[in-house]
Amino acid sequence: MKYCSHCGAEVAQRVPPGDSLPRYVCDSCGNIHYQNPKLVVGAVPEWHGKLLLCRRAIEPRYGYWTLPAGFMENDETTAQAAVRETLEEAGARIELAEPYTMISVPRVNQVHLFYRARVLDLEFKPGDESLEVALFEEPVVPWKEIAFRTVGLTLKHWFDDRRAGAFHFHAADIPPR
Amino acid sequence: MKYCSHCGAEVAQRVPPGDSLPRYVCDSCGNIHYQNPKLVVGAVPEWHGKLLLCRRAIEPRYGYWTLPAGFMENDETTAQAAVRETLEEAGARIELAEPYTMISVPRVNQVHLFYRARVLDLEFKPGDESLEVALFEEPVVPWKEIAFRTVGLTLKHWFDDRRAGAFHFHAADIPPR
Repeated sequence: MKYCSHCGAEVAQRVPPGDSLPRYVCDSCGNIHYQNPKLVVGAVPEWHGKLLLCRRAIEPRYGYWTLPAGFMENDETTAQAAVRETLEEAGARIELAEPYTMISVPRVNQVHLFYRARVLDLEFKPGDESLEVALFEEPVVPWKEIAFRTVGLTLKHWFDDRRAGAFHFHAADIPPR
Repeated sequence: MKYCSHCGAEVAQRVPPGDSLPRYVCDSCGNIHYQNPKLVVGAVPEWHGKLLLCRRAIEPRYGYWTLPAGFMENDETTAQAAVRETLEEAGARIELAEPYTMISVPRVNQVHLFYRARVLDLEFKPGDESLEVALFEEPVVPWKEIAFRTVGLTLKHWFDDRRAGAFHFHAADIPPR
């Protein structure tokens, strides 16, 4: 950021009074431009023991498989974001269950949140951001073609928890490289 | 937002190609300015059955009581944010436990996340954003002077769970008014 979004003047990085971190501060209108992590919210949609994955039609990680997920929007709840993203990317209608994994990714200033969910019917089809959508049993999950570490970790927890007979909430961090 | 933070040109709201929501789009440099919810992260610090609360020295809700919490910063994890905010607002060193409540507040485009935590010593003291910091047993919690609904809900869950003998993760939404 180099210009003030409120008045268009140039901004410089400095620590505002009473703050401890450098911010983009506008000396013209006084506005302080904070930059904060974003929430990426998605679902782990299950259909009779199989999980629904999408193959990405966009960068980053074009062609790799992911759980349906995307940036949470203003004016919605985390649960609404998970349902919306699953419908947009996979054309899939789901019944949402509880939050399942929450993973900080400080390297890209994101927090990824996935809900457990049940696929309601087999009418799903790829949205604009997906090449294909398919259901996978554990032995055929394309582990080497998973788009993001948070997705791989979430899938691993899901299959481990199912084997153990009980699903529970998992919090984790992906350390900076 | 009325000006492009990348080039300083005026921006207008419209739906970009392939998108479904209006964004601030810069016709000069092509940048799209997304606006997304922010994470507010804090802790429920316990000292031998009492909970630590801070009385706010800043708006909004000046003079009201809150759990230590604040906006998550770039380059940190949710757990680091909870520890940092507790140190900044209450001068309290804590040992963090698991995520405890996660509450969407779409009216203000925020998601509030609180961790359970143990206060490590009694050396706490108010930071710049707090008038005072104190430990409260359940009967003397100032319920009518709690700053935010997410804090009241989190405190209620904590005392209810303690009574029931088991703490577990709670997800909720504060509906728009």
